[in-house]
Amino acid sequence: MRATEFLLATEKETPADAVVVSHQLMLRSGMIRKLAAGLYTWMPLGLRSLRKVEAIVREEMDRAGAQEVLMPAVQPAELWHESGRWFQYGGELLRLKDRHQRDFCVGPTHEEVITDLARNQLSSYKQLPINLYQIQTKFRDETRPRFGVMRSREFIMKDAYSFHLTADSLQQTYDRMHQAYTRIFERLGLDFRPVLADTGSIGGAHSHEFHVLAESGEDDIAFSNASDYAANVELAEALAPAGERPAASQELSVVDTGDATSVEDVAKQLNVGLEQVLKAIVVRGESEAEDAEDGEAGEPVVLFLRGDHSLNEIKAEKLPGVLSPLQFASEEDVQGIGGVPGSTGPRNLSARCYVDRSAAHMADFFCGANHAGQHHAGFNWQRDAELPEVVDLRNVEAGDPSPCGQGTLEIKRGIEVGHIFQLGRKYSEAMNAKVLDENGKAQTLMMGCYGIGVSRVVAAAIEQNHDDNGIIWPDAIAPFHVGIVPMNLHRSEAVQQATEQLYQDLQQAGFDVYVDDRDKKTSPGVKFADMELMGIPHRIVISDRGLEAGQVEYKQRRGGDAQDIAVDAIVDHLRQTIAC
Amino acid sequence: MRATEFLLATEKETPADAVVVSHQLMLRSGMIRKLAAGLYTWMPLGLRSLRKVEAIVREEMDRAGAQEVLMPAVQPAELWHESGRWFQYGGELLRLKDRHQRDFCVGPTHEEVITDLARNQLSSYKQLPINLYQIQTKFRDETRPRFGVMRSREFIMKDAYSFHLTADSLQQTYDRMHQAYTRIFERLGLDFRPVLADTGSIGGAHSHEFHVLAESGEDDIAFSNASDYAANVELAEALAPAGERPAASQELSVVDTGDATSVEDVAKQLNVGLEQVLKAIVVRGESEAEDAEDGEAGEPVVLFLRGDHSLNEIKAEKLPGVLSPLQFASEEDVQGIGGVPGSTGPRNLSARCYVDRSAAHMADFFCGANHAGQHHAGFNWQRDAELPEVVDLRNVEAGDPSPCGQGTLEIKRGIEVGHIFQLGRKYSEAMNAKVLDENGKAQTLMMGCYGIGVSRVVAAAIEQNHDDNGIIWPDAIAPFHVGIVPMNLHRSEAVQQATEQLYQDLQQAGFDVYVDDRDKKTSPGVKFADMELMGIPHRIVISDRGLEAGQVEYKQRRGGDAQDIAVDAIVDHLRQTIAC
Repeated sequence: MRATEFLLATEKETPADAVVVSHQLMLRSGMIRKLAAGLYTWMPLGLRSLRKVEAIVREEMDRAGAQEVLMPAVQPAELWHESGRWFQYGGELLRLKDRHQRDFCVGPTHEEVITDLARNQLSSYKQLPINLYQIQTKFRDETRPRFGVMRSREFIMKDAYSFHLTADSLQQTYDRMHQAYTRIFERLGLDFRPVLADTGSIGGAHSHEFHVLAESGEDDIAFSNASDYAANVELAEALAPAGERPAASQELSVVDTGDATSVEDVAKQLNVGLEQVLKAIVVRGESEAEDAEDGEAGEPVVLFLRGDHSLNEIKAEKLPGVLSPLQFASEEDVQGIGGVPGSTGPRNLSARCYVDRSAAHMADFFCGANHAGQHHAGFNWQRDAELPEVVDLRNVEAGDPSPCGQGTLEIKRGIEVGHIFQLGRKYSEAMNAKVLDENGKAQTLMMGCYGIGVSRVVAAAIEQNHDDNGIIWPDAIAPFHVGIVPMNLHRSEAVQQATEQLYQDLQQAGFDVYVDDRDKKTSPGVKFADMELMGIPHRIVISDRGLEAGQVEYKQRRGGDAQDIAVDAIVDHLRQTIAC
Repeated sequence: MRATEFLLATEKETPADAVVVSHQLMLRSGMIRKLAAGLYTWMPLGLRSLRKVEAIVREEMDRAGAQEVLMPAVQPAELWHESGRWFQYGGELLRLKDRHQRDFCVGPTHEEVITDLARNQLSSYKQLPINLYQIQTKFRDETRPRFGVMRSREFIMKDAYSFHLTADSLQQTYDRMHQAYTRIFERLGLDFRPVLADTGSIGGAHSHEFHVLAESGEDDIAFSNASDYAANVELAEALAPAGERPAASQELSVVDTGDATSVEDVAKQLNVGLEQVLKAIVVRGESEAEDAEDGEAGEPVVLFLRGDHSLNEIKAEKLPGVLSPLQFASEEDVQGIGGVPGSTGPRNLSARCYVDRSAAHMADFFCGANHAGQHHAGFNWQRDAELPEVVDLRNVEAGDPSPCGQGTLEIKRGIEVGHIFQLGRKYSEAMNAKVLDENGKAQTLMMGCYGIGVSRVVAAAIEQNHDDNGIIWPDAIAPFHVGIVPMNLHRSEAVQQATEQLYQDLQQAGFDVYVDDRDKKTSPGVKFADMELMGIPHRIVISDRGLEAGQVEYKQRRGGDAQDIAVDAIVDHLRQTIAC
């Protein structure tokens, strides 16, 4: 591609409303343009990378035996009523009415449509397992779309859905998808981790997320420093401290803590470490009345943690009797169970209680005295209050022992770009999708689903690969592999000829080549800067002086010095250097 | 692809609600499945052909210097207000509100979005000409979606938009697109014609439609039998009859025609040919009052045609004073201008009149007498009534002289699959899209647009290429080039080995291969029938008997006898035979 024939749209200024680096660089390099909140046009530069991601995803899905389909983006409400999600899904589902006033949505996902297809097309176990995928535009009506295509409203997903007779078969396809995803992100050239993930509201049993590691990631990922173990902090297990709980060595007493109510203020006031103070968090419970509806609130539940630990809400809302999603109790609720906001402790509390494994290991600790302005000191479980049920309630922290038993945990930030999921029978049961088994008996299908945020991958790749000058593309998804800057192009016939020849040769070798043939009004400095901003990984400068020595100058975007390479060796050099 | 690993979904029965052949065959062969009215899922078989069409379109657009972009499917209403189409577009525009109650639509086309992009990105004549395209899902909320993907609500379009400083530059890109479209439809292997087309409500000057010829087409196309001339009948000019109008030879008289009111009944009653009777059609006029709004009705207008000719409504509604879109006048309106429904004639009519070129050439003819139950005989223009303004008002017919001056016209039916259009400044003016010219003066952009109905092409290809047994794919867009039927596969090791070898060899030669490896419960007859239904253009049968002679059986789907071909010659044979 020649610059003069290309919709080059680089910008010097960082747009004011772009807060993350990928959003800034995608706008500045001219990859995308905003149409409206959360809606972006992919410009020629951006689309080139997007299509390369798509192609790799498609090749690996095909290789893994999945079959490509294309479902409508606009979906009838009836199916969403069947699954129960028409009302459950909330404001992110873009609902609409057609000209006949029938309800539809612009699909944020396709479980309902594919399950409908499956129940119509699949009748026998002989057709199983089957794995169908599509690469398609989806819509999620985010309240606050942000970060460019990282959290846009319209986006491109690869979504796959597999159907099975048995859990074993589902596990096999799940493993195959795990492998395919690993290949995909390896081929994309990204530093990534598959991590154990929470199955969330979508239900189902097993789940892994694939995260591209980047400081700007929204998720915390916990890794073992000595094994392959990786999990979203949401899910990572916090082990119980080793050994027995220390024996009580102090008398129980009451201390004045004035108007200190937060665990931090109390610890400060008492001049002790946070880890010596027990923290009580009161949340709303789920009604256990027989005629209660799902999600109806009941008696409050108290959660105890060590003062220096943070509550893991995902773990908490899975506990029996706790309302999900998690809601904190009101002051009246706290008083109703005998607690005092800011001074709630385990003694004489009339509520269901849980204690975190680490908090259960505390001895001679401080905790609320259920009396305003007072706390207990020298508190010990079992002696001063019954030990509540011990559970894993906290977020893991760097330095914790890894739950895999090997090494300690490190925590890094990641951007979720893929998610694989064993859905089980959630949708097939609701929508009555069955096949006949070997005995002629109807069996509800088992189901898995496997997503990749194709447009999000592009942004995540930039978050991971950039410097102050712009993007640094991995070869596999670079819009152009090679950029040529011809010096003095419009005056030197030698440079013209060498440029044209190299442009043709590199294209024939299978590379995507960009030649900055803009006239002399655009200085070489501007051309270099644009190429760095656009992230073209390999740069060649052609000049009269170089040509006189039979050489061109070669430089990698990622760093290292410029090298002079013989004109007739440069194509081979790139063949050996470029990984795609 | 092996049948046992493929979502094969052939059906014997023709679905009751499918009336056109392509819709029937796409359902029966398992290419598509209906999700809801006008919404279809592309199954693996169908998607293979769709993607091949897409790839050819993309290659030729790139070759013609167009740059690919991807605009959002969901578009903000603001832009449609700017162009004036938010209200003009009617019920086919799928309007919706997001969670913040802002108006959006699911785009049926992208003139507004691209013009917005152009006004933001283009500032100088140096960036011109530029041609941007996308291949994307669109939505048109048809009142009565029908014919499967031929007139679905959700569909895939390639839409391109070019921007220019001058009409000459627009014409150059338009010509280049004309050539690119010609290459595309040639490469797709379709019998097609570019035809002159009406520019319709979208406005602009020049326009060609690309039609795939098929008996089931919705459009009539007029061709010269002696030149390249082709035009949509909507547009094709009907020349004036040669020579002078014959002189009057009869006296004017009045004849009783009883209750005959249609021109057919009148001719029958009088026992004369339709071509001897003048037909009057009264339509609503446009108000000429100074304060009239666009589209406000005024005085009726009378159109005279020869009884055997049909009114061309497109031509009529372009006439000065005629309301567009065309509306027929009420009986009261007809009486108001001195006419009598069923007996309206030119004499003493107080209305603006137009006469078709052929009707103006009539002499001694019959026409309404503006008196119930009576017609005139021996009527002659200028003697018995003033000759109204002579215009081209009728549809051309087979046998008419071609307007190009060479040969006569033939009429065939076509399916519109492409449309190229010179929009001029319609959108750029409404949306203020300007660039600076060489003198630094702001100039409103000239614009062209170029569409291909990608999903429609697939259906049109089937309408043109099928027989009683199913689809007959052109090689270039066949889901599979070659189908292999191994006889007795599960018992003969020789057949197994030969099948596997040929499957690998053909794939290595670059062909898409389908092997029907279903077990013996599926008879060879069923396999042959499925392959014919799916339209696989080249079939190879591998049997023990053939292998003993070192041969396989080869047959083309399009017809011709089966041939025995040496096993080691078959790949080369296919290389020479398959055109893609």
